[in-house]
Amino acid sequence: MATFARPIARLIEELTKLPGIGPKTAQRLALHIVTLPREEAHALAGAIVEAREKTIQCSVCCNLTDVDPCRICTHESRDRSLLCVVEDPKDVIALERTREFKGVYHVLHGAISPMEGIGPQDLRIQELLQRLQGGEVKEIVLATDPNPEGEATAMYLARLIKPLGIRVTRMAHGMPVGGDLEYIDEVTLTKALEGRREM
Amino acid sequence: MATFARPIARLIEELTKLPGIGPKTAQRLALHIVTLPREEAHALAGAIVEAREKTIQCSVCCNLTDVDPCRICTHESRDRSLLCVVEDPKDVIALERTREFKGVYHVLHGAISPMEGIGPQDLRIQELLQRLQGGEVKEIVLATDPNPEGEATAMYLARLIKPLGIRVTRMAHGMPVGGDLEYIDEVTLTKALEGRREM
Repeated sequence: MATFARPIARLIEELTKLPGIGPKTAQRLALHIVTLPREEAHALAGAIVEAREKTIQCSVCCNLTDVDPCRICTHESRDRSLLCVVEDPKDVIALERTREFKGVYHVLHGAISPMEGIGPQDLRIQELLQRLQGGEVKEIVLATDPNPEGEATAMYLARLIKPLGIRVTRMAHGMPVGGDLEYIDEVTLTKALEGRREM
Repeated sequence: MATFARPIARLIEELTKLPGIGPKTAQRLALHIVTLPREEAHALAGAIVEAREKTIQCSVCCNLTDVDPCRICTHESRDRSLLCVVEDPKDVIALERTREFKGVYHVLHGAISPMEGIGPQDLRIQELLQRLQGGEVKEIVLATDPNPEGEATAMYLARLIKPLGIRVTRMAHGMPVGGDLEYIDEVTLTKALEGRREM
């Protein structure tokens, strides 16, 4: 029996391809979209096309941007001697939100993961090494994710970069602020204990 | 400080307008969309525009459709003497999924809700009454939601339709199949008890 009108069925199919959008959510979104005022539906579609067309990777830091080099790379007040290496554009957003980091970034677009068949050649590591040849960078903060892939990537990069005479640091591990000690996993607790500081 | 590139920020803003999509989800979706192969991003945008442009309301049952009258209204095997009144197009989908209902539908596009300022005149009730003038309908199943708004709408419609000599029924209340009795609310339990049947 006919259920959804064909154009709605097609929209549901497209929406289901998005990450985290299951059939139920896609159905709810599609039925909302087809009853939107026409100009709002067009605004959404237009924003998708425009974002896809205008978003490029910064030729310096590989972050997503609409101007090249990106606004962080060209910002006059950023410290170009301090470079933070992250896996994803999302990580740049998270670090920028702290308003504490004044250096620049390099986005790898992933982490080394033999399980998923992602090797160093699949990441923006060549771009990073080329960038270091300029001699401007004095310290690299490895801010890859605190999981096995992120750790492996950090280890790999540290081994590659240390011989260049650049200081290599890693983000501290420890207890998340606002967390409840009894719910923190033992690996994190061990790291927090190891990294304890004088008060 | 610049965080998202402007076209991405605009896309996030548009996505956040969708129901159930918060800032975090919108951000995740936007960053996914801008890194999609170009043709996939265009397919999604195209599906949105097409669904919005081609979806209309059936002039008979007010359900969403791309042909008028809709496929259910024109289907030769449907029983046109049995009419099920629902609040939303989603409800038609849910009932069709049972494959048990062989009648036709009427979609009100909402329920009476004084709290939200929705009165009978905001629903497709005039269209329903006009439809009943044909004399073909022998029974109306009121399948509005089992909540105060749905109940009020059902009461209102029953009072309107009964004088026309048409049989008016309401979906049964009771325990959901597969549910756990101890977690069922007392109102539902009371209704289930009232509606108990001989075994």
